[in-house]
Amino acid sequence: MSTSNPLVADDDIAFLLHDVLHVEALCAWPAFAEHAPEDFDLLLGAARRLAREVLWPAYRSMDQEPPRYEGGRVRVHPAMPSIYAHLVEHGAISASRPRGVGGLGLPLTIASLANLYLMAANLGAYAYAGLTTGAAHLLEAFGDAEVRDLFMTPMYEGRWTGTMALTEPQAGSSLADVQTRARLGGDGRYRIEGSKIFISGGDQDFTENIVHMTLARIEGAPPGIKGVSLFAVPARRPEGDALVPNDVQCTGMFHKMGWRGIPSVALTYGEAGDCCGWLVGQPHRGISCMFQMMNEARIMVGMNAIATASVAYQEALSYARERPQGRPVAAKDPTAPQIPIVEHADVRRMLLRQKAIVEGGLSLLATTARFADAAEHAPTPAERQRATLLVDLLTPVAKSFPADRGFEANVLSVQIHGGYGYTSEYLPESWLRDQKLNSIHEGTSGIQALDLLGRKVVAGGGAAFAALVAEIRAGVTRAGAAGVRGEWIAAVERATVRVEQLTMNLAGLGLSGQVEPMLAHAADYLDLMGVLLVAWQWLVQAAALRETHREDAFARGKLRAAQYWMATELPRIEHLARLCEDVEDSYLSVQPDEL
Amino acid sequence: MSTSNPLVADDDIAFLLHDVLHVEALCAWPAFAEHAPEDFDLLLGAARRLAREVLWPAYRSMDQEPPRYEGGRVRVHPAMPSIYAHLVEHGAISASRPRGVGGLGLPLTIASLANLYLMAANLGAYAYAGLTTGAAHLLEAFGDAEVRDLFMTPMYEGRWTGTMALTEPQAGSSLADVQTRARLGGDGRYRIEGSKIFISGGDQDFTENIVHMTLARIEGAPPGIKGVSLFAVPARRPEGDALVPNDVQCTGMFHKMGWRGIPSVALTYGEAGDCCGWLVGQPHRGISCMFQMMNEARIMVGMNAIATASVAYQEALSYARERPQGRPVAAKDPTAPQIPIVEHADVRRMLLRQKAIVEGGLSLLATTARFADAAEHAPTPAERQRATLLVDLLTPVAKSFPADRGFEANVLSVQIHGGYGYTSEYLPESWLRDQKLNSIHEGTSGIQALDLLGRKVVAGGGAAFAALVAEIRAGVTRAGAAGVRGEWIAAVERATVRVEQLTMNLAGLGLSGQVEPMLAHAADYLDLMGVLLVAWQWLVQAAALRETHREDAFARGKLRAAQYWMATELPRIEHLARLCEDVEDSYLSVQPDEL
Repeated sequence: MSTSNPLVADDDIAFLLHDVLHVEALCAWPAFAEHAPEDFDLLLGAARRLAREVLWPAYRSMDQEPPRYEGGRVRVHPAMPSIYAHLVEHGAISASRPRGVGGLGLPLTIASLANLYLMAANLGAYAYAGLTTGAAHLLEAFGDAEVRDLFMTPMYEGRWTGTMALTEPQAGSSLADVQTRARLGGDGRYRIEGSKIFISGGDQDFTENIVHMTLARIEGAPPGIKGVSLFAVPARRPEGDALVPNDVQCTGMFHKMGWRGIPSVALTYGEAGDCCGWLVGQPHRGISCMFQMMNEARIMVGMNAIATASVAYQEALSYARERPQGRPVAAKDPTAPQIPIVEHADVRRMLLRQKAIVEGGLSLLATTARFADAAEHAPTPAERQRATLLVDLLTPVAKSFPADRGFEANVLSVQIHGGYGYTSEYLPESWLRDQKLNSIHEGTSGIQALDLLGRKVVAGGGAAFAALVAEIRAGVTRAGAAGVRGEWIAAVERATVRVEQLTMNLAGLGLSGQVEPMLAHAADYLDLMGVLLVAWQWLVQAAALRETHREDAFARGKLRAAQYWMATELPRIEHLARLCEDVEDSYLSVQPDEL
Repeated sequence: MSTSNPLVADDDIAFLLHDVLHVEALCAWPAFAEHAPEDFDLLLGAARRLAREVLWPAYRSMDQEPPRYEGGRVRVHPAMPSIYAHLVEHGAISASRPRGVGGLGLPLTIASLANLYLMAANLGAYAYAGLTTGAAHLLEAFGDAEVRDLFMTPMYEGRWTGTMALTEPQAGSSLADVQTRARLGGDGRYRIEGSKIFISGGDQDFTENIVHMTLARIEGAPPGIKGVSLFAVPARRPEGDALVPNDVQCTGMFHKMGWRGIPSVALTYGEAGDCCGWLVGQPHRGISCMFQMMNEARIMVGMNAIATASVAYQEALSYARERPQGRPVAAKDPTAPQIPIVEHADVRRMLLRQKAIVEGGLSLLATTARFADAAEHAPTPAERQRATLLVDLLTPVAKSFPADRGFEANVLSVQIHGGYGYTSEYLPESWLRDQKLNSIHEGTSGIQALDLLGRKVVAGGGAAFAALVAEIRAGVTRAGAAGVRGEWIAAVERATVRVEQLTMNLAGLGLSGQVEPMLAHAADYLDLMGVLLVAWQWLVQAAALRETHREDAFARGKLRAAQYWMATELPRIEHLARLCEDVEDSYLSVQPDEL
């Protein structure tokens, strides 16, 4: 374990924010007019220090000593109370929220890159804050004055935490099948009854209360997702000036392969008939509320994934530079000293692949966050509307590319560490375990694929897809103007045309009612879009380097990663496109009893 | 956890042995003349029962309660003494060894497929037996009568276990850097001094002794691998009729992410100057002895990997058939019952991919084992020589394809289990952890790639490669005669020509002294060879189905898996070949400070 692991490359963050995304320009928007670019750097600097000095030193211990379930309560790691206090003080929960609700009013782009350090340092510890932000933001967006006052404020203030309570044993990916019930009592309050599983942070012992944002079905509601409502259900409910138990029981804890700093629990509501829930938003519109916050949650998962891949990449890089082993392939003298393994081509291959995934994926996420800021705060409605379309379309890729490819990167970090990588004396195996969740929670990669192809690319008659293609072409133009290598520009252009054509063909299938064939290769389509969008990002990064006339080691490494992506990944698109177009039917046709 | 998990598909094993490989023919060889095909089935049947009834029920507990290191000794799981006795009684250690040394004289093809069940049931538990076979076999092949009598016999009899003690902290993949010393004493005995790490089964408390097959450097030996000798170093040495401590200390235990049933320890030899070692083979020829056994060890790792992927595939298949979740993509009625997830195209994709990897990889391994039998026992020297070339060439692929792709398959098994897959309440995550080691131990995948391209395909002026191409062409001919789909045959033929041409080009680079460019894309070459060889195996399997006129669910499933491989994987070869041929230089050229 390298004590000097930087977690995330500071120079990459600075490059992304300033040279690639020009975030200074955000300060010209009314919503951010109170800020100067220096405010952005202040938050990032504080996040770095907090991550490196407070969260990171506790990571290994929190992985090795997960929370315990005792007497119906979860006891978390002893480091958490102090860590949470630091996170609150730093603004990890509310930095991107408006002043009016107690936030700092900073762009999401800045807040999420600051949080990236916290995630990379200690994902489980950060997750309490991330979940609380999500829960409070739901109330901010959809709650009435009472529930905002009762529940949102204590969460943004860091006094209580929040959770997302969606999953039930029979309703994991299928929220239409939620069965938790809500009954309006004579006192005008809803009583909640039911069970939830996999509730991250569903119990802890370092704040006085927890608010579970809970999906439930009001008595008499229509079946399916159009009958699911959203409730704020506190573990303890306010009665006058006191908090009294609200009949929410933590009935057990799951034993997870990773994310061990935060418990995943099962909850039972209303066993004694005394569990009150506060309706959030309209009755039966709970899924719609959830989905409006889903982009943010999914972009956060993408950030979690890049953070986990980043810290592992940094660890592997440091190990490879220091670990002597073997000699050059052409060397003959066994008495010559061994060379650091970074000198071996195959180790550099694994490192450059990690770099291409981590920095390419991060660039895509930061770009998506930048559009999310525009969707909420851009000066004109037209800009906001267009940015909303782009965020919707980019989200499934920004979630699943980091999760799936980040996992690959984490595997490479273990591999570079050799036998040591397989032991818990070193950290790469713990990050590999952490990473695996990201392709599962907040919608599996399979669901992201269906969302992308079945919903997002065809949304608004293809308006979002057209906007995305225009963005890619703007990147191509920028690269051309900056003098980026012509073959890269041409390759991205060709791939874009190919994906446009493919998307039209698939949309045509869907329009003619052939939904199954259209979606048969949704996973390949998602893979292909990830490859294209990250190629776009590498092209834009190459442009930014030329624009700033950088030719230092940082710039040379970036260009090698860009080259790697263009040569190794981009050519895969044609093959993936053919599988989609031909509706290759091996798994569509295979029957369950034939497997 | 499915209690009815079959671990490995019995019908697939029967199909491979009888319809694909015609193992009955082995009984016509003098070495196996004493056996009837029924003997093969007896061993397989016994292995199945032992695996399902004894090893499998202990797996979860052995994963969750790994060995403890206390007072300088390792205490293993309480189930191990009884399991080891069963393994010995069954013949797991010596089934493939000759009668003369206490074995059953069965073909390796049969013994290794029987062991596959044991590995799939409980990899850690089986590993003690597998390591013991390897250690004893080294003595059988290279030991003189004294060491065979002293050490080999008790190991084959199951009274003692054996280990491979190669790795040292400064010499992991680089055996040239072994520093453990051997000094010839006045009494004609070698005294050993040094330290080893990562010794699997390096201590345990269920047999009275352990023999460490140890690489060490005799005083005055030349530097590098040509100065490394092989010694049998018992934990306790025979003195008269007694066993006395031999000054080998277990100084600690590594904490591994998987393989938790068997400890990995650090050993120190000769701290008190009283550690005796028995030279095995010629002085300074230890690496050569080890390498002659390396194929067997690497094929065993391939089997470990397929076993681990197989049991996880079976678990995912059973889960997918039973778990209801969601509705068809085109369904509108939310009150319709949920469907089993195997009905979702993306789940079938993940299952069929697992099947293609598991059964394709197993076919390649069984074919390799069949060549290993021929290399040792075929009636004529020419047949034996040709088979030896083939085994040498196939081994790096037969080791790393199952390790790398098997890991992918294990990841898919977790993914299919969704949130449950991420918890240790279910088993897929434990198999994922087990699998990761297989791309690291017995030579990392990077080392297999260099071995394949830098050594094996150019060995004997390309004789091995020519023999392999002839084998693939024989498969193509067989498929043609059987009436397999013409497009598959053509695709495998084309790919073979492409890989022949590529291999010539790369060999040409090497011959002209451009070793680094030749080997720059060794990893891609290994990937490509895996794709081609497994396509060959799927073609041969398709041929065997036609030959036996099978059209049942088993046959239809096989043909879907073959189709998947031909459509999804085989076309990747062209891209990989170009990367190799163009010597794409992104990671060759990137400098350590640029990463």
